[in-house]
Amino acid sequence: MERIPILKMGDFLLVTIQVDMHDRLVTTLQDDLTLMISRSGATGVLIDISSLDMVDSFIGRMIGNIAGMSRVLDAETVVVGMRPAVAITLVELGLSLPGVRTALDVEKGMALLRSATRRRSGEADDGRDEG
Amino acid sequence: MERIPILKMGDFLLVTIQVDMHDRLVTTLQDDLTLMISRSGATGVLIDISSLDMVDSFIGRMIGNIAGMSRVLDAETVVVGMRPAVAITLVELGLSLPGVRTALDVEKGMALLRSATRRRSGEADDGRDEG
Repeated sequence: MERIPILKMGDFLLVTIQVDMHDRLVTTLQDDLTLMISRSGATGVLIDISSLDMVDSFIGRMIGNIAGMSRVLDAETVVVGMRPAVAITLVELGLSLPGVRTALDVEKGMALLRSATRRRSGEADDGRDEG
Repeated sequence: MERIPILKMGDFLLVTIQVDMHDRLVTTLQDDLTLMISRSGATGVLIDISSLDMVDSFIGRMIGNIAGMSRVLDAETVVVGMRPAVAITLVELGLSLPGVRTALDVEKGMALLRSATRRRSGEADDGRDEG
């Protein structure tokens, strides 16, 4: 099982992190995800970390990087399902995940993405086409 | 990471299988899932196996059992994301997954569940309350 599945749900992509991440798996995930955003035109990415009961700076950086890549591809990132202990660890590690939104569960995350997308599409309609 | 996360999406529950399953993990998943169906009143369960590139009779039986348990709790099960090679192996193993519906991806699976639920709720309204 060498790659993390990315599930398409309407305009959003859902990634569930369940396994221990290592360098190569992270690279594969970033490749797959960016490819899938550009192919599907997804406007949001949900990263579910509810099965992680620990994070380290590696995972924190990975989430930040994914959010950055998604943003330049015109998709918002929401991290969902964070456990209380993980929140404590992240702040203690000095990783406040700037630019990453969070929500308690997938449903709330999708609602957040929907309202963010609606607001954005009100501001500008075709930001994706300028590249 | 000792349990598989179950994500609630509207009336349905989504389980993504990513890790190698062993006896205890399967038991935990069945406990969690049945508890979550009865608590949330979910009417459908989606099992995503897109990251499995192999199945054995153990996994096949697990899927069948989960479908059976869900059914007695009044929820339909749909297996999504099956790879072609997995379909071949399942049939070669003699596991045709009776009583389990399948769909190519999560979106199609949710559409299938929605139509099945609608049809069922037309037939009988309160089957759940008779126990």
